[in-house]
Amino acid sequence: QGILERLDAGEIVIGDGGFVFALEKRGYVKAGPWTPEATVEHPEAVRQLHREFLRAGSNVLQTFTFYASEDKLENRGNYVAEKISCQKVNEAACDIAREVANEGDALVAGGVSQTPSYLSCKDKTEVKAVFRKQLEVFMKKNVDFLIAEYFEHVEEAVWAVEVLKESGKPVAATMCIGPEGDMHGVSPGQCAVQLVKAGASIVGVNCHFDPETSLKTVKLMKEGLEAAKLKAHLMSQPLAFHTPDCGKQGFIDLPEFPFGLEPRIVTRWDVQKYARKAYDLGIRFIGGCCGFEPYHIRAIAEELAPERGFLPEASEKHGSWGNNLSMHTKPWVRARARKEYWENLKPASGRPYCPSMSKPDGWGVTKGARELMQQKEATTEQQLKELFQKQKI
Amino acid sequence: QGILERLDAGEIVIGDGGFVFALEKRGYVKAGPWTPEATVEHPEAVRQLHREFLRAGSNVLQTFTFYASEDKLENRGNYVAEKISCQKVNEAACDIAREVANEGDALVAGGVSQTPSYLSCKDKTEVKAVFRKQLEVFMKKNVDFLIAEYFEHVEEAVWAVEVLKESGKPVAATMCIGPEGDMHGVSPGQCAVQLVKAGASIVGVNCHFDPETSLKTVKLMKEGLEAAKLKAHLMSQPLAFHTPDCGKQGFIDLPEFPFGLEPRIVTRWDVQKYARKAYDLGIRFIGGCCGFEPYHIRAIAEELAPERGFLPEASEKHGSWGNNLSMHTKPWVRARARKEYWENLKPASGRPYCPSMSKPDGWGVTKGARELMQQKEATTEQQLKELFQKQKI
Amino acid sequence: QGILERLDAGEIVIGDGGFVFALEKRGYVKAGPWTPEATVEHPEAVRQLHREFLRAGSNVLQTFTFYASEDKLENRGNYVAEKISCQKVNEAACDIAREVANEGDALVAGGVSQTPSYLSCKDKTEVKAVFRKQLEVFMKKNVDFLIAEYFEHVEEAVWAVEVLKESGKPVAATMCIGPEGDMHGVSPGQCAVQLVKAGASIVGVNCHFDPETSLKTVKLMKEGLEAAKLKAHLMSQPLAFHTPDCGKQGFIDLPEFPFGLEPRIVTRWDVQKYARKAYDLGIRFIGGCCGFEPYHIRAIAEELAPERGFLPEASEKHGSWGNNLSMHTKPWVRARARKEYWENLKPASGRPYCPSMSKPDGWGVTKGARELMQQKEATTEQQLKELFQKQKI
Amino acid sequence: QGILERLDAGEIVIGDGGFVFALEKRGYVKAGPWTPEATVEHPEAVRQLHREFLRAGSNVLQTFTFYASEDKLENRGNYVAEKISCQKVNEAACDIAREVANEGDALVAGGVSQTPSYLSCKDKTEVKAVFRKQLEVFMKKNVDFLIAEYFEHVEEAVWAVEVLKESGKPVAATMCIGPEGDMHGVSPGQCAVQLVKAGASIVGVNCHFDPETSLKTVKLMKEGLEAAKLKAHLMSQPLAFHTPDCGKQGFIDLPEFPFGLEPRIVTRWDVQKYARKAYDLGIRFIGGCCGFEPYHIRAIAEELAPERGFLPEASEKHGSWGNNLSMHTKPWVRARARKEYWENLKPASGRPYCPSMSKPDGWGVTKGARELMQQKEATTEQQLKELFQKQKI
Repeated sequence: QGILERLDAGEIVIGDGGFVFALEKRGYVKAGPWTPEATVEHPEAVRQLHREFLRAGSNVLQTFTFYASEDKLENRGNYVAEKISCQKVNEAACDIAREVANEGDALVAGGVSQTPSYLSCKDKTEVKAVFRKQLEVFMKKNVDFLIAEYFEHVEEAVWAVEVLKESGKPVAATMCIGPEGDMHGVSPGQCAVQLVKAGASIVGVNCHFDPETSLKTVKLMKEGLEAAKLKAHLMSQPLAFHTPDCGKQGFIDLPEFPFGLEPRIVTRWDVQKYARKAYDLGIRFIGGCCGFEPYHIRAIAEELAPERGFLPEASEKHGSWGNNLSMHTKPWVRARARKEYWENLKPASGRPYCPSMSKPDGWGVTKGARELMQQKEATTEQQLKELFQKQKI
Repeated sequence: QGILERLDAGEIVIGDGGFVFALEKRGYVKAGPWTPEATVEHPEAVRQLHREFLRAGSNVLQTFTFYASEDKLENRGNYVAEKISCQKVNEAACDIAREVANEGDALVAGGVSQTPSYLSCKDKTEVKAVFRKQLEVFMKKNVDFLIAEYFEHVEEAVWAVEVLKESGKPVAATMCIGPEGDMHGVSPGQCAVQLVKAGASIVGVNCHFDPETSLKTVKLMKEGLEAAKLKAHLMSQPLAFHTPDCGKQGFIDLPEFPFGLEPRIVTRWDVQKYARKAYDLGIRFIGGCCGFEPYHIRAIAEELAPERGFLPEASEKHGSWGNNLSMHTKPWVRARARKEYWENLKPASGRPYCPSMSKPDGWGVTKGARELMQQKEATTEQQLKELFQKQKI
Repeated sequence: QGILERLDAGEIVIGDGGFVFALEKRGYVKAGPWTPEATVEHPEAVRQLHREFLRAGSNVLQTFTFYASEDKLENRGNYVAEKISCQKVNEAACDIAREVANEGDALVAGGVSQTPSYLSCKDKTEVKAVFRKQLEVFMKKNVDFLIAEYFEHVEEAVWAVEVLKESGKPVAATMCIGPEGDMHGVSPGQCAVQLVKAGASIVGVNCHFDPETSLKTVKLMKEGLEAAKLKAHLMSQPLAFHTPDCGKQGFIDLPEFPFGLEPRIVTRWDVQKYARKAYDLGIRFIGGCCGFEPYHIRAIAEELAPERGFLPEASEKHGSWGNNLSMHTKPWVRARARKEYWENLKPASGRPYCPSMSKPDGWGVTKGARELMQQKEATTEQQLKELFQKQKI
Repeated sequence: QGILERLDAGEIVIGDGGFVFALEKRGYVKAGPWTPEATVEHPEAVRQLHREFLRAGSNVLQTFTFYASEDKLENRGNYVAEKISCQKVNEAACDIAREVANEGDALVAGGVSQTPSYLSCKDKTEVKAVFRKQLEVFMKKNVDFLIAEYFEHVEEAVWAVEVLKESGKPVAATMCIGPEGDMHGVSPGQCAVQLVKAGASIVGVNCHFDPETSLKTVKLMKEGLEAAKLKAHLMSQPLAFHTPDCGKQGFIDLPEFPFGLEPRIVTRWDVQKYARKAYDLGIRFIGGCCGFEPYHIRAIAEELAPERGFLPEASEKHGSWGNNLSMHTKPWVRARARKEYWENLKPASGRPYCPSMSKPDGWGVTKGARELMQQKEATTEQQLKELFQKQKI
C-alpha cells in the first residue's frame, strides 16, 4: 500500500531518523558540507543504518540524498572525487534504500532539499532544473513517493513540489522552520497553504528545532490549512536536541552546532512524549531528523504501539519503559524498571561549569544583516563584528 | 607485531569503544542483561560497528564477548534461544573481529569480564572454570592477546588473569573502579600490584567513571606499581559520560543509568583533552568503554596524530578542530572552524529544569547495606527504604 | 515640588524598595500575613530602612502601610495586639516617613493595597469604605501624594483610585500583573486605560514579576494608553528576583516563595540594566518592590546619574561599576574594578544540585480551579490534588 | 556570666552575622577597603544592625572594628576624613555594641583582624604594636572578651592572640582558612594547636568558605587538638554563600566576589542544617560572617531552640519552618507551611544562562606566583597573564 492509502486509512506512519548526523559520528559524512557521497563510497554503512531504522519501526526509508543536488555536490567538489557523479550518488541511494525496504514493510521515498542555486539567487527555471535532475533518478529507480524537505524559504519549496508533482507520485513537503515562519517572514500557516496549493499531499516540518517547538509549528500549519479550508496530512521530523534557546534559524545558530550538542540530546522518554503529543495533534507521519538514532525511532513505535497494535522488531531487545532492568544484578537498578521512574526523571548534565541555555550567534540579527554577511563573506567573528558596527545594525 | 612489541617500542595503541551501549541504541542488545548474542543473531551489525572503530583508528578490536560467560548467558536464559550456546556466541565474536581486523592494522583481543559465579560466592575452581571455557574458544580462534576487563573485585580479576595466562598469550587487565578502589576496599595501587603479580602485562581501568576520574585511578595504579618496583604498561578505557557526581560504584548508581545519560555524553573535544592527559600520564593503550562511539575514538587518534605521525581513515571525513565548517554556507558557522572556539566552548544543556548534578542512589550506602539489599532482593524503592530503616543503616 | 511637577518637567523620580521582605529578614515582619504593625512596635527599624532608601537615592518614601487596611489587620488579629489599631499603624507610618523625608529631598506617598474585603466578594461600597479609612489618616497627616499598589484585579484598583481621588491629591496606581493581564483576564493595556479614566495620573506595575517581565507589562500598558489616546506617566516597581519561569500569578506560585528565593536575587548590575531599559521605555518613576534592598535602589540612581546630573548620598560608599575594588589588597580582585567585568559576568549559583527553572505550583491551573481551591480551603498538597481530580480540572 | 562560664557550662552561644557585607548593602561601607568608619559617621545604622542580630538571638555582639587597625585605616586614608582617627572608630564601635548588648542578654567582644603591616612584612614588634593600639581601646571600654578573627596566616594570628592575652580577658581566635590550611601551608589542626598554645580558649574559623566547608575545617582543628591532647572550645562563623567551587583562598577568588554573589546566598533552611551539623560536631559558639543577615542568625537560634529551651525575640515574627504561611490567602502557599517542604526544596536560580560553578581566578596559582603578583602590582588581567607567562608559572 502506498503512503496516501496508509494515511487516508488513518494508519500511523513512522519515519526514519537523521542520516547526516548519525553517519558523521560513524565516520562517513563531513560536517559542514553534509553531502551523501557515502552511498557510493561506503554503501554497507548506509545500508546498516537503514536496516537499524527499519528494525526500529520506520515505515518509510528516505533515500540518503540530502544535499545531493548537482550544484551542491559540485560546490563541494574539492572532496568529492570526479568519478562520483551526482547521478551515481542518487542511484546508489535508491538501490540501498530499496534493498533494505524489501527486508520489511517499508516504502522508499526519494528526497530533495534546498539548493545553493536558490541561495545564490538563480532563477526559477535554473533551480527547477536542479530538482528535475534528481527526480529523473527517482523515476528510473521507481521510488514509492517523494519528499521535498529542509527548505528555509517556502518559495523554493513550492518550486520543488511543482517539479516533484510532474512525476505523478505522491509528494510530501517539510520546511525547516519554527513558529516564526520562513526566512522571508512567511508564517507557518501560509507556508502550508502554499505547499498544498502547489500539490503536496503531506506537509509539515523537519530539522532545525526540537520536538516541542516543531509541534508548535505544525499546529500553526494545521490552523492555516483549516482557515484556508484545505486538506492535507501532517508530518513532523524534528531534531533530537533540546533547543529552547534558539532563534529563528534554529540550532544552526546555537554556539554548540554542530560539535557540542551532546548535552542537548533527547532521551527515549522525551521521544515518547513527543510521539504522543504529535499523535494527539493529528499528525500521522511521525519521524525524526538530525540526532534521531534508531533507539529514538523505536521510542515512537513503542509509544504508539497501543494504537498500532504491534511493536517493532527491535523491541525484542527493549522492554517498555525500561522493564528489562528487572534483570539487572543490583536491586536499586532493578527498582528503575518502571514507567513512573523514567517519566519523571530530570536528568543531570554532569557539567557543573555549564549553563542551561546558550545565547545564539546572530541573536537578534535581522534578515538584512545576515544577507549582508553572506555577501561580504566575513569569516571571523572579529570581521562579523566590524561589519555589524559599520552597518550600524 | 603483537601488542607487547608495540607497547615496548613506545607506540600508542588505540583501543575501541563501547559495544553494549552502542548496539543497544542500534537495536541489538538488551539493557539490563547486556549480553552479546548479537554476534550470532545479527553479525552484520556487530561487524559494522567493528569496522567503524577500525576506520576511526582502533588498533585493537575486542571480541564482542562482554558478559558472554556461560553462567551469565544461562542466567539470562529466558531470552537467549537454546540454540545460541555460549560457545557459538564466543566463536562468532572471534570470527567477526578477525574478519574486520584483517581489513586494517588491528589486533584481535579476546575478552572476559566479571561473572555471576563470583558474585554468588562460587569458589575459585568454579569461577576459573567459567573463564577457561571462554579461553578455549579464544585459543581455537587464535586471538592475538587477551583482556580481563570490567571487574569490581580484584580477587576475581586475579583469578581471570591466572586463567588467561595459561594460554601463553599477553594478558591485559582492567578494573571498573574509581580512586576509592575495589568493592572490598582494595586501593587502585594494590589492585595494580596484584594484577601484575598474577601475570598481567598491561593494567588499568575501564567503564564506570568518566575520563577525568579514570585517569586519577590509573595514576594511583601507576604510583602503586612504582612503589612496589613493578613494571607494566598502562591502559584506560573510561566512560564517554561526565560523572563527577557518582559514588564508589560509578555510573550504575546515578539515577540516569542507563536510559537518561544523554546530557552527560562527552563531546569529541572532551575526548581530545582526555587523550592528551592520558598520554601525558604515560598511558599508551588508550580507548573507551560505554558511550564511546566511533567519533570519540577518532578524536583520540586525531589528538595524538602528531605523536603517531598519521591520521585514521575516518579523518578523511573530519577536519581537525572542526575546520570543515569553513565550507558551511553561513559565515557565523564558518567562524567556528577553529580550535580555540571548540576548546573553550561550555555547551549548554538546553534543559532548564535540570540540575548539574544528581544524587546517586545508595549515596552513602555502606558495603554491608548493599550486600543486605542484594540478599533480600528488595525490588522497589519503598522496599529498599524500609529495609534501610529496619537495619538502621 | 510635587510629584506631578517633577514628572511633568521630565525629571526622573526614583522610588524606594521592598519593605515587607527587607523587614522580614531584619526580624520585624511575618511572612504570610505581611502586615506592617512594626510602625508601632519597632519604629526605629522602619525609620532606619526609610533612611537607607533615602540615602540610596529614593525621591519617594512610601508610608509603610502595605496590607494595613482594617480588614486585613483584623483578619490577622491573632497576632496584632488589640491596642495596635489600624489607625495607629497608619498614623505611625506617616509620621516615620515624613520624619525621614525631611532629612532629604523626598516626597511622602500614602499607599493602599488590595483588600480581603474584595477577595471575599464584598460589594463596592464596603471595599471603598476600607480604603477611605486609610485615606482619612493620609489626609490628616498630609502626605504629598497617594499610591494604589499591588492589585491583582483592575476592578478593585479602580475603586481604590476613585476613593483616593476624593482627596484632590495626585494618584498613582500600580498592579501586580504580568503581560497576561489581571486575574480576570483584563489585558495590561486595558488595565491602564481604566486606571487613567478613574483618575490615576501615573500608572504601572509593582511586585510579582522580575524587572524584565515587568517592563514588558508596562510597555503593553503604554501601548494601550496610546491606542486610547490617553496620557499618563509610567511607573515600575518590580521584584528583585529573577522569575522567568513563573505563571500568571507571578512569584507567589514559584515553589521557592517566600523562603527559598535567594538564588534568584538580582545583582546591582542587573538593576542597572533594568534602570536603563525602563528609562529608554519612557518610564520616569522607577523603583522596586519585594527584594529591592537599598543597594538595588542606589544602582538605579547610579545608572541614571548622567541623566540626573548627580549621585545619591550612599554612592560615597560605592564606586561606580566596582571601582573601589582598585583598593583591594589582591591584584586579581583589583582587576575586577571595571564595568566590562561586571556587565558580562554570568554569576554561578554554587548549587550543583539545583536547576535553573522551577515548575510553578498551580502550573496551568485555571482561574476557576484556583477560586474553587480558595473556597474549599484545601490546605495540604494531597487535598489540593484530590480536589483537582474530583473536579476533573 | 562570661563567655567561658557559658561555654564551660555546656551552653550554646550564638554569634552575630557579617557587618561589612550587610552595611555595604545598606549604604555605609565601601567594598574593597571594607573599613568601619560608619561607627563614627552613621552610628544609628550600626546600632540598628546590632539590634537586629540581638533580636535574632545573638549572645555575642562583636564591636564593628573589622579592619579598624591604624595601619589599615591610614592605608585607606584617601577616604577616611582626617578627623576620624583609629581611636575614635574603635571607641565608637565599643560604645554602640555595649549600648545594644545592654538591651538584652549579650556579651560584647572586641575584635581585631589581619593587618597590612603583616602582609607588607613588618616585624613581630611592629605588628603587635598595631594590635596593642586597638586593645587599649577595648580595655578602656571594658569589653567582655576578645576575638582575633580573619587571619590567613597563623603566625600573625598567634601574635594577635599573644597581645590580646596581655589583657587577662578570655580570647577567641578564628582563621579564614579552609581544609587546606593557612596561606603558608600550615594545616588546620596545626593552626588550632598553635593558637591554643598561644593562649586562645576558643578556636575555629570565620569567613572565606561556606558552612559545609567551614565545618570540615573545624573538624580538622578538633582532631588536631585531640591529637595534641589540648582542650579548647570550638567556634564557627562561615559565609552565607555556597562556595563549593572555590580554591584555597576562598570566595575572594571566585569571579563573583564581591558584587555578584547573590545566587549563592544560603537560605534560612541551609542555615538550620549548618547549625545542627555544627552542634553535632561539638561546636558551641556558632555564628556567621559575610552574608549572614539577621534572619540567618535567627535560623541558628530556631534550629537549636530544643537544646536551648527558648526562642529568640525575633521569632515572634517567624513561624518555625514557615508555619506562618498557614495564614497566607492562597491555599497552595498555605500548603508550604511545613518542615518537609522547605527541607527538601532545591531552589532554582531563575538564571538560565548561568552555570552551577565558577572557575576561581588564580585557580592553580601557587603561593610564589601570588606573592610575585602582589609585589609587582599588576593591575589588569592582561598584565597578570603576562607576568605569569614571563615567570613560566
